[in-house]
Amino acid sequence: MNTESPMHQMTDEEAWAFLGSHEFGRLAFHLAGEVHITPINYCADRGRLIFRTAEGNKLLGVTMNQDVAFEVDEFTETEATSVVLRGFAQTLEGDEADFADELPLRPWVPTEKHVVIAVTPSEMSGRRFDLQRPWLHQRTD
Amino acid sequence: MNTESPMHQMTDEEAWAFLGSHEFGRLAFHLAGEVHITPINYCADRGRLIFRTAEGNKLLGVTMNQDVAFEVDEFTETEATSVVLRGFAQTLEGDEADFADELPLRPWVPTEKHVVIAVTPSEMSGRRFDLQRPWLHQRTD
Repeated sequence: MNTESPMHQMTDEEAWAFLGSHEFGRLAFHLAGEVHITPINYCADRGRLIFRTAEGNKLLGVTMNQDVAFEVDEFTETEATSVVLRGFAQTLEGDEADFADELPLRPWVPTEKHVVIAVTPSEMSGRRFDLQRPWLHQRTD
Repeated sequence: MNTESPMHQMTDEEAWAFLGSHEFGRLAFHLAGEVHITPINYCADRGRLIFRTAEGNKLLGVTMNQDVAFEVDEFTETEATSVVLRGFAQTLEGDEADFADELPLRPWVPTEKHVVIAVTPSEMSGRRFDLQRPWLHQRTD
């Protein structure tokens, strides 16, 4: 009998490596007392997550309340990985914003996004899960 | 020149079909004035999203503040789909909770989760994006 836990905590180093090797996640933010969530392209850079946005709810939300959460995940048939973090968002300006042009921050959708936001994590948790999904192998015939 | 928008709004019917054909998403919720996000297995059932949880932050959060957001996505090399919704969460009890046993609600990780939560959407937006990710085809040699 396998009594090992199906959940494995990642080290901060492993979690950052995971964030650095991905570029798509979900940002959760406050907006007028509500919680909102949106998919975004990001880039991990020197302990922060950088993303671009246009004027809109996302920008309004993080301008009015910097408290945000962010999640990146990946799964295969046998393993799931998820890194979750909480932190604060701030709009970058001037040289800092210009610097974002040098980052490998590659929007998947070519719409105009002039505002650069940085999220600085205050807490982070990376976890790997051994999956039990026998139904993936079930035959229906 | 292709002037078509890279973003396509899904109908509610398409968004529900997408939710119904997936079982993994991310729940954003309030907890003591903070926004939190967590990956979850879910099942779409008659206009609601059902998931199981154990005692913990997730349950505490949605018990203290029912306002939640939820996101499910999928992407290939050429297209991304994301359904985002906001709604309210409630703990199911008695017959309603027992009914969840009949749903194809299949936790990927076999930990004990005795509490059944239903999220009823109040607003929903499904979008498909044509992707431009030329770097996927870049050769480094």
